[in-house]
Amino acid sequence: MSFRIGFGVDFHQLGEGRDLMIGGVHIPHDKGAIGHSDADVLLHAICDAMLGAACLGDIGVHFPDTDSTYKNIDSKILLKETVRIVKAEGYQLVNIDSSLCLQEPKIKPFVPQMQQTIASITGISEKAVSIKATTTEKMGFVGRKEGLVAYATVLLQVI
Amino acid sequence: MSFRIGFGVDFHQLGEGRDLMIGGVHIPHDKGAIGHSDADVLLHAICDAMLGAACLGDIGVHFPDTDSTYKNIDSKILLKETVRIVKAEGYQLVNIDSSLCLQEPKIKPFVPQMQQTIASITGISEKAVSIKATTTEKMGFVGRKEGLVAYATVLLQVI
Amino acid sequence: MSFRIGFGVDFHQLGEGRDLMIGGVHIPHDKGAIGHSDADVLLHAICDAMLGAACLGDIGVHFPDTDSTYKNIDSKILLKETVRIVKAEGYQLVNIDSSLCLQEPKIKPFVPQMQQTIASITGISEKAVSIKATTTEKMGFVGRKEGLVAYATVLLQVI
Repeated sequence: MSFRIGFGVDFHQLGEGRDLMIGGVHIPHDKGAIGHSDADVLLHAICDAMLGAACLGDIGVHFPDTDSTYKNIDSKILLKETVRIVKAEGYQLVNIDSSLCLQEPKIKPFVPQMQQTIASITGISEKAVSIKATTTEKMGFVGRKEGLVAYATVLLQVI
Repeated sequence: MSFRIGFGVDFHQLGEGRDLMIGGVHIPHDKGAIGHSDADVLLHAICDAMLGAACLGDIGVHFPDTDSTYKNIDSKILLKETVRIVKAEGYQLVNIDSSLCLQEPKIKPFVPQMQQTIASITGISEKAVSIKATTTEKMGFVGRKEGLVAYATVLLQVI
Repeated sequence: MSFRIGFGVDFHQLGEGRDLMIGGVHIPHDKGAIGHSDADVLLHAICDAMLGAACLGDIGVHFPDTDSTYKNIDSKILLKETVRIVKAEGYQLVNIDSSLCLQEPKIKPFVPQMQQTIASITGISEKAVSIKATTTEKMGFVGRKEGLVAYATVLLQVI
């Protein structure tokens, strides 16, 4: 029995006139995340952790932000494709743990829906999709509400 | 045999009139960490990594900073409770690896005592509790000595 | 069968008059990374992740920046020594996943050479050495091109 571990980190600026999509869920907020796709920082970090564990490049390689195909794309589609690629390479996802760093808004009420969404796409139990959240105690660009960061770690089993 | 991995990150501001508690150990310094509890950034990151690996929420869910029970609380108590919760769910801690990012003071002399403290609370060997430290090369809020960050990763075995 | 996980993070300032070494490869750029050694942020993060997983201290303990032996040293030598130390303790490296955060230059074209270099030193397959890259979307000290950050996670098997 063999395993692989992966780690992903993603960054997006916050700005007006954009939706705030986190973990595949729309979060009501006066600012949204800026990016070529829907800028879902959490799903991007998870995609990167999965690709990294499987040693298959990164999200920028598979879904380049210079490709108009991915303009404003729903990142759930990117996660679904990532899952397909990683499975095809002979890996099964064991668990995901993730940490969101943002000063506001509170995302706790949305965590169960995010877990359901990610579990449904990845085919693992909601009890294997962990989403944690923290502020940066008002420090740095996250603390100044200029942006948000997500970290994700995943364990894959070689099948 | 199955495993789960977890990752935690925590941030605290540094300020005068507070003790600097890291890894359950008091570090002599002219500034301390600011927070609702004793603001032990390392123990908080470890708690979050354990809760995340077990998919049991995060430190803010279990020990909310709006609850006066946790005002100035010794974070060793929070770690002990985290260990109890995670074990009750059927997991055994395999190892902890952590990284402290702070510009000063040097914490290397205190690492063995931190390892002993954490090993004693978690019930694993000191040889499975790793604590590393780095500056951020004077960059960012850590480099300006405004705050400190801790990262922790843990491996749990399903028992 | 038992495993250990590790996580490393490293920071270096960018400045003129220095080479930019990342992953053991020279990257043509108008700035380089500043440090006591060759300041290879990626190899340092990988060393720290390996030392952390094996609970053998950190890169600052083994290769102190106050020791003139390590002045401008090629970090490939540090990685080679780290691999020796970790193997001698009874661990075998399973996989590495890493993330580089830098605003510029694009390092994607150099990733295969970095993978070959690291695989050759560590003795694992290139298909087990993952190197991902992202900007911080122009935020923070990385976004201002003042410095760069690398994260690495590793899985070790106890042999």
